[in-house]
Amino acid sequence: MASGKNLSFPELIRKKRDGEKLQKKDIQHFIQAVKHRSIQDSQIGALLMAIRLCGMEPEETQSLTQEMILSGKVLEWPESWHGLIVDKHSTGGVGDKISLPLAPALAACGCKVPMISGRALLHTGGTLDKLESVPGYNVNQTTEQMRTILEEVGCCIIGQTEELVPADKILYAIRDVTATVDSLPLITSSIICKKAAESLNALVLDVKYGSAAIYKTLESARVLAQSMVTVGNQLGINTTALLTTMDYPLGKRVGNSLEVIESLECLKGRGPDDLRELVIRIGGYLLWMCQKAKTPESGCEMIGETLDNGSALRKFQAMLEAQGVKQATAQALCAEKVDYFQIFRCAQCQEVLHSENGGTVETIQAMTLADVLNELGAGRSKAGQSINLSVGAELLVDVGQRITKGTPWIRIHYEKPELQDSHRHALQAALVLSDCPPFTPGSRITEILTPQAMK
Amino acid sequence: MASGKNLSFPELIRKKRDGEKLQKKDIQHFIQAVKHRSIQDSQIGALLMAIRLCGMEPEETQSLTQEMILSGKVLEWPESWHGLIVDKHSTGGVGDKISLPLAPALAACGCKVPMISGRALLHTGGTLDKLESVPGYNVNQTTEQMRTILEEVGCCIIGQTEELVPADKILYAIRDVTATVDSLPLITSSIICKKAAESLNALVLDVKYGSAAIYKTLESARVLAQSMVTVGNQLGINTTALLTTMDYPLGKRVGNSLEVIESLECLKGRGPDDLRELVIRIGGYLLWMCQKAKTPESGCEMIGETLDNGSALRKFQAMLEAQGVKQATAQALCAEKVDYFQIFRCAQCQEVLHSENGGTVETIQAMTLADVLNELGAGRSKAGQSINLSVGAELLVDVGQRITKGTPWIRIHYEKPELQDSHRHALQAALVLSDCPPFTPGSRITEILTPQAMK
Repeated sequence: MASGKNLSFPELIRKKRDGEKLQKKDIQHFIQAVKHRSIQDSQIGALLMAIRLCGMEPEETQSLTQEMILSGKVLEWPESWHGLIVDKHSTGGVGDKISLPLAPALAACGCKVPMISGRALLHTGGTLDKLESVPGYNVNQTTEQMRTILEEVGCCIIGQTEELVPADKILYAIRDVTATVDSLPLITSSIICKKAAESLNALVLDVKYGSAAIYKTLESARVLAQSMVTVGNQLGINTTALLTTMDYPLGKRVGNSLEVIESLECLKGRGPDDLRELVIRIGGYLLWMCQKAKTPESGCEMIGETLDNGSALRKFQAMLEAQGVKQATAQALCAEKVDYFQIFRCAQCQEVLHSENGGTVETIQAMTLADVLNELGAGRSKAGQSINLSVGAELLVDVGQRITKGTPWIRIHYEKPELQDSHRHALQAALVLSDCPPFTPGSRITEILTPQAMK
Repeated sequence: MASGKNLSFPELIRKKRDGEKLQKKDIQHFIQAVKHRSIQDSQIGALLMAIRLCGMEPEETQSLTQEMILSGKVLEWPESWHGLIVDKHSTGGVGDKISLPLAPALAACGCKVPMISGRALLHTGGTLDKLESVPGYNVNQTTEQMRTILEEVGCCIIGQTEELVPADKILYAIRDVTATVDSLPLITSSIICKKAAESLNALVLDVKYGSAAIYKTLESARVLAQSMVTVGNQLGINTTALLTTMDYPLGKRVGNSLEVIESLECLKGRGPDDLRELVIRIGGYLLWMCQKAKTPESGCEMIGETLDNGSALRKFQAMLEAQGVKQATAQALCAEKVDYFQIFRCAQCQEVLHSENGGTVETIQAMTLADVLNELGAGRSKAGQSINLSVGAELLVDVGQRITKGTPWIRIHYEKPELQDSHRHALQAALVLSDCPPFTPGSRITEILTPQAMK
C-alpha cells in the first residue's frame, strides 16, 4: 500500500477492530466520507462499535476532534475580540440552567459568549427549549446575526447550525441507535468539536456525576473530564473542567419555563444558593482563564457583582430583545417585581404533595423527578418530539431541611387529564428522609481540573 | 422489560457489546428485522462488529443458524428420499474441483445430491463459474426443476436461489464491507444455514488450511471445523469435517474450463491422485454417514468403483443434459477419447515456463498462482465482476518430483495482450525447489472430525 493512498474502509475498520492505532490520514479519510455520505452506514456502525470496544489513544481522539471541526465551517471573529471569547459546556443534569444567568454575566464583564446549545433529551434538559418558553425567542440565528448580537450585546444562545461540524451530526445520530454513545473518544470529540468550531479562547466543562448524571461515579466522570481537558488544550482552547455532583436537582425548579423564572431570579441577585454558586464559580474561572481576572477568586467576585448590580440582568434583557423577544416582554420579565405567569403560559393544573413522613431531607432523587416530568410531557424520549414547556415542578423544601409529616414539599405543574397515582407514588418515593439532624449541603464542586493541575 | 417484549435494537446491540449472551428470541428478532430490512444498516454493522469482537457461545451460534434458515424457504423432498440426501462444502482453495466428480459419483451410489454452489471470489474458485464453461450449462434452476433433476439423475449443481436463507445474503454483503467476515459464529452460521436449507441428512465439510486457505494454521481451521460440526449435528444433519492441506494447487489444472477437463478425467478413472483421493474419501464418508456403506472404507471403495466403471461419468453426462447442455456436447465431453478444446473455448495464447534451477519440487505456491491468474482475468476481486473462463494454468511437474534446470513446469493459458514479465517472475518464484531427494506427497487429509470423535 503506497503511503499516499487512503486505506479502503474495510481495511480501516479492520485496523481499529484489531486494536491498531488509526493514523491522522485514516481518520481524515473516514470523517470526510461521513460528511459526503460516501461511506456505507453499515461501515460507520461497525467502525463506531470497534472504537467503542477497542478505544482510541489520546492522539487518535485529538485527530478525530480536529477532523470533525474541519468537516464544516469554523466561526471567525474580529481581531479585537481575541482572548475574550468564552463558553461553557455541561454534560447534563436535572434543573441545570446555569447557562442562562452565566452567559449575560460574562457579557457584563466584557466577554464574548457565542453559546451554541442543545435540546432536551431523556432526563437532561435543553437550554434551547427553556429559552423558547419566552414568547418570541428565536434560537435560529445566522452566523451574521450571531456576530451582530455578540457585537452589540456580548452574548447569544442559539441552536446548532447546519454549517458547523456536519460530521458530528451524522455520527451522533448513528451512535444513538448503535449503542455507541458512551465511548470516551466519541464523547470527547463530539463535545469538544462543537465548542472548538466556535473558535473559543477559554472553555469550562461542567462534568456532572451522580445518580442523575450520565456518569454515576466521580472516577468515571474524571476520566471523561481529563480526556476533554487534554483535547481542548491541545486544540489551543484554554480548557478547565469542574466535577460537580448531580443527585438532587440543581436549584429548586425543574421544567422549561419554571427554570427560566429561576434563572431570572438568579440574575436579580436572588434564587437558590447552588445555582448561584455554580454560575459564580464557572464564570470566575472563565474570567481568570481569559485574563479578565487575576485569580479565579477575584473572577468569582466580579461575576457575583454582575448578578447583584443588575448588569447581568440588563445583558440578558438585551439578548432576549436581540433574539426576537418584544421589548415590553423583555422589560417586564426583567423588572424587579413581576408576575411571571402574566408572560409565561401557566400549566392547567398545579398539585402540591405533602410529605408522608417527618425527618431530615437527605436527598430528592432527581432522576425519578425527571422521569415523572418527562411522562407528563416536559421532556423527550426521542430527538424531534414536541414537548410541553409549562410542565414542571417546584421544590418547596431544601436538602438538609428538617420537615414534619404533612409538610408541603413539591408543587407539580401539569396538564389535564389528572396526575396519576403512579406519578404521586414515584414522587413520594423520591423524597428521601432520615433521622439525622438538619444540615447545610456542601458545595456541588468536588474537583477542578485545570490544564496546569493535570501536568 | 416484559418477558414477551422484544428488546429495542440499541438494547440488543448493547447486550452483545457488553459480552452478554443473546437469547434465542433476541436473535430471532434481529434476523427477522434483517430479512424485512426493518433494522438500520448502521445497526447491523455495529452488531456484527460486536459479535466479531465479543464472540458467541455455541448456543447463540446455533440459534443464529436456525433463525437464518427460517428466514427463507426450506427445501422439501419426497419421503422416499429420506436418509439419502447428502452434500459437501469446502472452505475454498486453489484448483478445488472436488464437487464436480463427487456429486455424480454419489448419485451413482443412489444418493440425492442437491448441490447449491457459489462463484469465484478472490483466490477461491467457484463451482458455478467452472460449469458455465460447458456450453449450454444453466446454473439457474427453479426448486421444481431441481427436484425433477434429482428424481431423474440424482444430482444437480445450481446457483443460490432468492428463496433460501435471504437473511444470509444480506448479512454476507454487509460482513464483506465491515471487516466482519472472519468471525467464527458468523462463518459457521452462514455456511451451515445454506446447507441446512437443502434439508440434508449428511454433510461433509472440507475445511482447508495452509498458505492458500482462509485459515493458515491447522489449529484455527480445527476450531472452525468443530464449531460447524457441532451446529450441523445439533440441527439434525449428520456432519463430519475433514481438515485438509491447501498450500499447493489441488490437482494439476487451475482455471475454470481447465478444471472441468480435469474433473472429466477423474470421472474417467484418470486424473491426479490428490483429487481422486479427496473425492473418494469425502464420498466414502458420506456413504457411511447415510448408511449406504458399513464403514467409511467400504464407502471409499464404492466411490472408487463409480469412477472406474463409468457410472459416475454417466451421471455427470445426464446432469449436464438435464441442466441445458446439448446431448451431443455432453456425449462428446464424456467420451473415452476427446479433444476437449473442440468443445471448450481455448484461450488465445499459451506459454510454457521452464524451471530456472534444478532440484526437487518442494511446493508450488498456490496463492501466487491464483493471484497471477486473477490478474489475467480468471477470477474476481469483487462479487459481480465478469471473468474469463478460458484463462488458467496446467502444472507439468508434480510436488516431490526431481527436475533439472530448463524443465518445462507450467503452461499458462491467457489472452492477448502479452503475459507480462512481472507475471513470469511471480510464477517462477512460486516454484520452490530444494536439495532434498524426491518424495511422494502425503495425504492432504490431516484430521477427520466425526461427531462421535468430538464427544
